[in-house]
Amino acid sequence: MMIPVGVSNRHIHLSKEHMAALFGEGAELTVLKPLSQPGQFAAKETVTVEGPKGKIENVRVLGPVRSLTQLEISKTDSFKLGVAPPVRLSGDIDGTPGITIHGPKGTVTVDKGVIIAKRHIHMTPKDAETFGVCDKQVVKVKTQGERALIFDEVIVRVSEDFALDMHIDTDEANAAGLKTGDYVELLPS
Amino acid sequence: MMIPVGVSNRHIHLSKEHMAALFGEGAELTVLKPLSQPGQFAAKETVTVEGPKGKIENVRVLGPVRSLTQLEISKTDSFKLGVAPPVRLSGDIDGTPGITIHGPKGTVTVDKGVIIAKRHIHMTPKDAETFGVCDKQVVKVKTQGERALIFDEVIVRVSEDFALDMHIDTDEANAAGLKTGDYVELLPS
Repeated sequence: MMIPVGVSNRHIHLSKEHMAALFGEGAELTVLKPLSQPGQFAAKETVTVEGPKGKIENVRVLGPVRSLTQLEISKTDSFKLGVAPPVRLSGDIDGTPGITIHGPKGTVTVDKGVIIAKRHIHMTPKDAETFGVCDKQVVKVKTQGERALIFDEVIVRVSEDFALDMHIDTDEANAAGLKTGDYVELLPS
Repeated sequence: MMIPVGVSNRHIHLSKEHMAALFGEGAELTVLKPLSQPGQFAAKETVTVEGPKGKIENVRVLGPVRSLTQLEISKTDSFKLGVAPPVRLSGDIDGTPGITIHGPKGTVTVDKGVIIAKRHIHMTPKDAETFGVCDKQVVKVKTQGERALIFDEVIVRVSEDFALDMHIDTDEANAAGLKTGDYVELLPS
């Protein structure tokens, strides 16, 4: 019952409208490298994000463009920016703080969209059957090593479009001594 | 079986010799605020630490002075400095990386002393009896909330000089959604 880990560094998803405002009318994202989830990629493009207390440069844009702009940061990053984002699943941005985004061709201020990503496991329906879990189920995941721990409150997300991967942020990776490509164990419910 | 949490931000302990080199001959630490462990305090004094890739300013000196200089940072900090410290208990610095320390009156480069603190619980012999654990025992600790997890590999440290407190670093605190003063639960072995 082992699952590979993907550590998500801070990153941003852009709407088509904000892509144009930040990178110019008609600009498109260029692929730097594919990500574990099919069709998703890290783009060559980066932005600077700025909050009330500070800014962070070189924030990677992930592609393809989405319907909503969403900045995913760690709690550590949130202190630097001076924002207090909630822990949320991707796409669930109602009531979240906004941020200012600087691109090479313009600046955009969004009034919501900053989250700390809730830890989750992507898997296919076939994986879910193998593991005996279902979409949105909360599971426990065990790690190994000198910083071993058991993550509780891990959300299972099931789709034909997914590949098996547990996503954690950099705080979680550092706290557990994990890096991308390490394996963790899904505990029986 | 609840234990209060103390989140340790990056900090440094100085030897008498390095104290003199950084702050001037005869300089003494001044108390900013007492810490949870009896006799220990955050000093008003701070230093800048510098590694191969970058530096971090305003690193708090903890008092009183010790026999060995030791810099305790998070894994997140280690990437910024460009050093690769091991996860260690305080005082166990053989084979650890060195660092350059800048004070108001001088600079010192130590050839060892940088660690990532291994999570641990301080307690008195009476606490140990209550909890049914002994010095150096490895225990599990459960946290609550939306980032709930169970820390494994937690070392119990027992001394008459201690007060009950679980020490974690900022990566661990952020990953678990904990802050100083929160409570965690020692799980039965």
